Amino acid sequence: MKTISLLGATGSIGTQTLDVIREHPTEFKLTALSIGKNIELARKMISEFQPELVSVQNKSDYITLKTEFPQVKFAFGPEGLIETAVYEKADILVNAVLGSVGLNPTLQAIECGKTIAIANKETLVTAGHLVMDAAKRNNVTLLPVDSEHSAIFQALQGEKAKNIERLILTASGGSFRDRSRNELENVTVQEALNHPNWSMGAKITIDSATMMNKGLEVIEAHWLFDIPYERIDVLLHKESIIHSMVEFHDSSIIAQLGTPDMRVPIQYALTYPDRLPLASANRLNLAQIGRLHFQEMDVERFRCLNFAYIAGKEGGTMPTVLNAANEAAVAAFLEGKIRFLQIEDLIEKALSTHQTIQHPSLSVIQEVDQETRQYVQSLL
Amino acid sequence: MKTISLLGATGSIGTQTLDVIREHPTEFKLTALSIGKNIELARKMISEFQPELVSVQNKSDYITLKTEFPQVKFAFGPEGLIETAVYEKADILVNAVLGSVGLNPTLQAIECGKTIAIANKETLVTAGHLVMDAAKRNNVTLLPVDSEHSAIFQALQGEKAKNIERLILTASGGSFRDRSRNELENVTVQEALNHPNWSMGAKITIDSATMMNKGLEVIEAHWLFDIPYERIDVLLHKESIIHSMVEFHDSSIIAQLGTPDMRVPIQYALTYPDRLPLASANRLNLAQIGRLHFQEMDVERFRCLNFAYIAGKEGGTMPTVLNAANEAAVAAFLEGKIRFLQIEDLIEKALSTHQTIQHPSLSVIQEVDQETRQYVQSLL
Repeated sequence: MKTISLLGATGSIGTQTLDVIREHPTEFKLTALSIGKNIELARKMISEFQPELVSVQNKSDYITLKTEFPQVKFAFGPEGLIETAVYEKADILVNAVLGSVGLNPTLQAIECGKTIAIANKETLVTAGHLVMDAAKRNNVTLLPVDSEHSAIFQALQGEKAKNIERLILTASGGSFRDRSRNELENVTVQEALNHPNWSMGAKITIDSATMMNKGLEVIEAHWLFDIPYERIDVLLHKESIIHSMVEFHDSSIIAQLGTPDMRVPIQYALTYPDRLPLASANRLNLAQIGRLHFQEMDVERFRCLNFAYIAGKEGGTMPTVLNAANEAAVAAFLEGKIRFLQIEDLIEKALSTHQTIQHPSLSVIQEVDQETRQYVQSLL
Repeated sequence: MKTISLLGATGSIGTQTLDVIREHPTEFKLTALSIGKNIELARKMISEFQPELVSVQNKSDYITLKTEFPQVKFAFGPEGLIETAVYEKADILVNAVLGSVGLNPTLQAIECGKTIAIANKETLVTAGHLVMDAAKRNNVTLLPVDSEHSAIFQALQGEKAKNIERLILTASGGSFRDRSRNELENVTVQEALNHPNWSMGAKITIDSATMMNKGLEVIEAHWLFDIPYERIDVLLHKESIIHSMVEFHDSSIIAQLGTPDMRVPIQYALTYPDRLPLASANRLNLAQIGRLHFQEMDVERFRCLNFAYIAGKEGGTMPTVLNAANEAAVAAFLEGKIRFLQIEDLIEKALSTHQTIQHPSLSVIQEVDQETRQYVQSLL
């Protein structure tokens, strides 16, 4: 039996991780979890999964729950998140929190030698060099949970890194795939949240609409698979059936396919290097689907993807700025403070203002992250 | 450096194997080869590759070449084929001969512990149980060269057989994919030989048009991957870009893709478990292709595929009959003795006449093979 610590249990990846654990009660045991502010859902999870440790965002919720569940250990705030990440009775940390807040817990868990199932892409974007260095030093396996990276990871099983020609990340195109830039001027938050294929959290759905999500994934893929940006391509594939591909230098391409169902990559990370049945999964029927479409990615239309390549190639603190500016801008859009296309403008301004610091330490990254958020705030 | 013995050097797979060897002169050395009657081409191959042993079909050619190339060892006939297959200085046997004539050399090479790159699917169809038993006993690796089986083999790297849900063989549909059965009444040999995607030998091109090729591949896949027929599906995919797929029981599908180029699976078999660059390969550009199509296979329309499933499930000598009847019927069609749809009729008659012998020995198989050919001849 594998014991699991889950950061971000009430989010989209979190609840689907619980679905997988629920389907395999003899294989997996949830020993620790963190949630944000959704205390009602937390109560249900505690009753169902009986974890030993639960961390919440606010102290007041911590006090409330402590009284209600005297048999459970509780924690709160950033310290609680770290406590959950490094919980000694967990074999695997599933990091499904949102944003760069996931960085420190990940680094701490790596130092403790935990296997990391990483759904928190911002961690790798903001400080990929620190995370990968720590993983190497501690001989820790980073298992991707993002469907694209899981696809590449699956395609690479039994293969040698030296034989990789390029990685091909597929992109659905998000909510606004078929709209021109002019048609994006006045789109609403509700329209942006309406993703054609995947049911996900608000931030990642907006990131899909701006194509920043794919940009973050390119940077994530660069770090996870140690491939230069010049050999990471993005291909528009509106059905999201081929989740991503690896081309080898003999021209052979290995791809991973399936219906869009995040439980598949989540479970793969938990069962790796083995697989387990997933009875509840919708099986892919290609004959029924009939056609798969592919189209070149237009980086003029999707400027955020271009920003990500530029920031990634520049390296140092530039991806930190990209990520922090994006988090701040998307939050502002979701709060109705800016229009959709202003997300791009704010990120562009943050990138062009920043002077890159190469080989930044964790404290430098945290500083640049905060400064960038403040800078974006100042422009609103 | 790997040393190679090549059976069927002047055929389509044979010459493409030579292309691969030519591209990697420091990796591969052709030490032995067999050809049929194309002596002119044989002369060129001997001059270029300087093999140590060459086997030809006829004694007269043997005598001619012996005088011309005194430094080369020659052999001829079925014995020569076996001598080439077991040539002691070869590490790998590439079996690219056509038809069940490839069986005995394969078995002999397996007994000598050679790694076998098998392009001769009839060997596995006619006597899969003998071949796989011998391979197991001698701890010999069978490396598929057929693009479909190579795709499955590549998709299975790093995976466990117990996790396989099903194999999905893709089928282009052959020359007559878009014609109804009525429209097949009077098709010519030339029309049948016009395959939309692959440039192959005459027999396999006709087999593609009747869909018997896919039927033979289903039986081949059954033996190579030890999967019951109920879990081997065939999917129409007219572009021949996805070469085949494996679905695992977590619903994840791994596929291998590429432009239709047999040099890729040939080279993979020769470099396995590694890969080498193949500079001359046409790289796949999915954005340029734009769409991939998939369609359910219609076994009423393609009766030969149905015959293959029936013969495969029946087992024993029934697949031997299927293969021998098909070889005889296709030869008759190519010679203009029968019409296209009569291929199916002849196979059906041979199958329904035969009384299955379970667990047949090699001599029983050879007897049934001969009897079946005679039976088909008697119906012409």
